[in-house]
Amino acid sequence: MTDLTPTARSRVKRLHERGAYDFATIAAILDAGLLCHVGYIIDAQPYVTPTAYWREGEHLYWHGSSASRMLRTVEKGVDVCFTVSHLDGLVLARSGFNHSINYRSVMLFGRARKIEDQAAKLRALESFVEHLFPGRWKQLRPATTQEVKATTVLSMAIEEGSAKVRTGWPHDDEDDYSWPVWAGVVPVQAVVQSPVPDERLSDTWEPPAYLADLRHLGLSSK
Amino acid sequence: MTDLTPTARSRVKRLHERGAYDFATIAAILDAGLLCHVGYIIDAQPYVTPTAYWREGEHLYWHGSSASRMLRTVEKGVDVCFTVSHLDGLVLARSGFNHSINYRSVMLFGRARKIEDQAAKLRALESFVEHLFPGRWKQLRPATTQEVKATTVLSMAIEEGSAKVRTGWPHDDEDDYSWPVWAGVVPVQAVVQSPVPDERLSDTWEPPAYLADLRHLGLSSK
Repeated sequence: MTDLTPTARSRVKRLHERGAYDFATIAAILDAGLLCHVGYIIDAQPYVTPTAYWREGEHLYWHGSSASRMLRTVEKGVDVCFTVSHLDGLVLARSGFNHSINYRSVMLFGRARKIEDQAAKLRALESFVEHLFPGRWKQLRPATTQEVKATTVLSMAIEEGSAKVRTGWPHDDEDDYSWPVWAGVVPVQAVVQSPVPDERLSDTWEPPAYLADLRHLGLSSK
Repeated sequence: MTDLTPTARSRVKRLHERGAYDFATIAAILDAGLLCHVGYIIDAQPYVTPTAYWREGEHLYWHGSSASRMLRTVEKGVDVCFTVSHLDGLVLARSGFNHSINYRSVMLFGRARKIEDQAAKLRALESFVEHLFPGRWKQLRPATTQEVKATTVLSMAIEEGSAKVRTGWPHDDEDDYSWPVWAGVVPVQAVVQSPVPDERLSDTWEPPAYLADLRHLGLSSK
């Protein structure tokens, strides 16, 4: 996997010491998420659409209905900004100014390509389900030709972008450390609760083993 | 508070039954979050920047360093797309096609205004801290003139936009309900862990009472 080279649009400008361009850091942040925010332009207006995504190697994927305005715009190969962010904590300092948040984020630039070949599209959708729930794809009612046709899958190379990460303690002004107020970090996590069976599921079904641990999606168990 | 009127850019097109334009729904989704994704354009390139925000009445606010590229761009009054989204659950259906996620999202359009008056800016920053941690502002080392000057606060009216919400069970094809696979929902929540005191805090400090319940920020306790 190739590390990224900072460019005019991807170089982290503010607090550049928080920036990273190595592939491993970027991939780890991407893999710890489910929802991205895709930025694109229609008629000089920016739009930011939240959508599910997944990564395979050096490519990102996202998908949806072939009727989606976002997908129909982005599949034309327009410039996209693809952002993923995780809130990791609230950082309470001795001054309002030094309050912060702990986070991990990735911002990527590029153009997406529509997967036209139906077999390749089906393989991509299988990868998505298997990424979420390893072993589930073969348990499902198989996809129909019509369903695959009605789905658009986009792919974008991870070529240009950056990660930005803040961790750790508040950074107070030296004179402020003696100020009489509590300071520290309140960690935040995305947590899954117990699976809730569909009301139309017969009650002989136990939740499948692949739901027991969703840490690969950045989700902790309670 | 005025409900919003759908416009060409704000009307929910796909799955329009998930769309809402009433102020109460939009405000509740905004208030249950800390991180927004701001979309804006520089030289025909879309950017999506995650940042902290807060709401007061019919206005959104976000802030940062006066040197921030995002803020310096947006303060010029360019078109912005402001998106907030919460992941509420993974929805497992009997077919891959009917898998979904439960979410609450808001997408707002508008132009932001910079708060120029220093006293008004200070009041806005106080509101932000008090929104996060009621009672904390007066405990802090007071803000200096220099800190207020070095901070940009933007405000945007909640005038045009929509909410989009999915809740509940998978919607399977009627013939699929008997397919032999587990189906249901895995709920997801943003959860706070116990506050971790700063390593330079003397150990006589207990975490303040306002950290005991952060549900107003959409954060549950473990």
